[in-house]
Amino acid sequence: MAPNINEVLKYLHKLQDQICEQLENLDGTGKFRTDAWERPEGGGGRTRILRDGTIFEQAGVGFSHVYGEKLPPSATTQRPELAGRNFQAMGVSLVMHPLNPYVPTSHVNLRFFLAEKENADPVWWFGGGYDLTPYYGFEEDCEHWHRQAKIACDPFGDEVYARYKKWCDDYFYITHRKEPRGIGGLFFDDVSEWGFEKSFRFLRAVGDSYINAYCPIVEKRCQIEYGEKQLRFQHYRRGRYVEFNLIYDRGTLFGLQSGVGRIESILMSLPPKVRWDYDWQPDPGSEEEKLYSQFLVSRDWLSNG
Amino acid sequence: MAPNINEVLKYLHKLQDQICEQLENLDGTGKFRTDAWERPEGGGGRTRILRDGTIFEQAGVGFSHVYGEKLPPSATTQRPELAGRNFQAMGVSLVMHPLNPYVPTSHVNLRFFLAEKENADPVWWFGGGYDLTPYYGFEEDCEHWHRQAKIACDPFGDEVYARYKKWCDDYFYITHRKEPRGIGGLFFDDVSEWGFEKSFRFLRAVGDSYINAYCPIVEKRCQIEYGEKQLRFQHYRRGRYVEFNLIYDRGTLFGLQSGVGRIESILMSLPPKVRWDYDWQPDPGSEEEKLYSQFLVSRDWLSNG
Repeated sequence: MAPNINEVLKYLHKLQDQICEQLENLDGTGKFRTDAWERPEGGGGRTRILRDGTIFEQAGVGFSHVYGEKLPPSATTQRPELAGRNFQAMGVSLVMHPLNPYVPTSHVNLRFFLAEKENADPVWWFGGGYDLTPYYGFEEDCEHWHRQAKIACDPFGDEVYARYKKWCDDYFYITHRKEPRGIGGLFFDDVSEWGFEKSFRFLRAVGDSYINAYCPIVEKRCQIEYGEKQLRFQHYRRGRYVEFNLIYDRGTLFGLQSGVGRIESILMSLPPKVRWDYDWQPDPGSEEEKLYSQFLVSRDWLSNG
Repeated sequence: MAPNINEVLKYLHKLQDQICEQLENLDGTGKFRTDAWERPEGGGGRTRILRDGTIFEQAGVGFSHVYGEKLPPSATTQRPELAGRNFQAMGVSLVMHPLNPYVPTSHVNLRFFLAEKENADPVWWFGGGYDLTPYYGFEEDCEHWHRQAKIACDPFGDEVYARYKKWCDDYFYITHRKEPRGIGGLFFDDVSEWGFEKSFRFLRAVGDSYINAYCPIVEKRCQIEYGEKQLRFQHYRRGRYVEFNLIYDRGTLFGLQSGVGRIESILMSLPPKVRWDYDWQPDPGSEEEKLYSQFLVSRDWLSNG
């Protein structure tokens, strides 16, 4: 079955608004502003961002749809079969940076890519996923997050959750620190072997499960009292987020290098306040150390089945 | 004349201590701590860092000397003639992050590289330079900084300052922002054509001129009163420093990817407090806008000769 771009566009666009609406409800006071932007070579996007809310210091939810007659060379070095094709790339990408250090940061990406030329089958795939980055670890939150991910994956095959959970662990890894970015979730790419209909259904299952995966955790943790120490640790750990996004994240680097996309929309993933502390080490036995020793490790979060 | 490694080592080691001593005197209260580190494969370094001083929020001055029987493959892809050689790399690298936003950040790097094998001439070169990153621009400070750079270069040839000033402008450029990192200074690499003696003298001339270039600016600006607005702008602009160092700086990326060197010593260049503000724009006619329009542009700072 041929891919139905309009359905994907419609879904992603609607998901952006739905997520923003639910996050506004959760936050209580913060409101999303909307910036529409155009790409001179074709397409554009709509960046929605909430700053200085009650719960969220920054919440950015971006939608983009870019297209052109020819893929940029940087996109075809790895896939020479795509050279000379026209293309469409669309996606929703979001990062939540909560104020309260006991509330984790979350990230979602959902994307669809299509390259066509005359007298040839279209080449297309879905990619995306979501992952969670706590500053203070709660086992039940990690279990809830991964449970929702598994529920979204299970109708598509018994091995789907395990495969994309592992890919997420592998991808969100800060090599120079020998540290995972967070406690993972799902990461998938090149999803097309199920055919368009089922692959698109999978994308929707993941997209639709995000709010159920994240909001209960926010609600549970956003009232915990915190002080300077916890804030400082949050800002310090956000430094790792910056290191990952600027050094390793393929989407960020592709966006910055290719000139496809708007810089401020790409870098909206970066946290509002960050700090680096030379050779900082957590106190032995502290909550901060527990994050490293019990959460920032490769773990099966659903070992109870 | 064959390169005299011990002389270079001695100079760099002494320069690290001299600079730290002069910065301590300038700061008044801050003291450098010293961390020695070893590289299992050969060599190591000495990282000296001052935190929370009166003038400097963070001042890091690193010395390193690493060597080995074989260059790592990442170091020889661009220079296949070096494959199979043993190597020595040594350098001093420093970044000053002052508290007062009216005091600029400064950066210095001085390095020497040598690769040898039996029955072949040694391959060696010097590299380095220094550059200044103001948050609020003062024409006379930029002129003073570049004047000291030129005085250091002039004995080595009429065109030396101009060549390395331009290389600095080209190198410290944040492509995705279409913005220079700061107001430049000197950047040089592969310096060997003068022979060892003169090349080393040039490195020393640059190294010895740094304190004269930077300290008078610090003294002149460190008493200017500032408030939340200026601090916020300083933290925001530091984000550009992070973007440059993590995305473009060759030394940082090589250090992170090759595993040569100690992560905390490499990332000591990152500022202690940083912020990102989505789509922030300076007010028209403000001091902040003046930084962009009159200082972060390619300029001849010594147009009066």
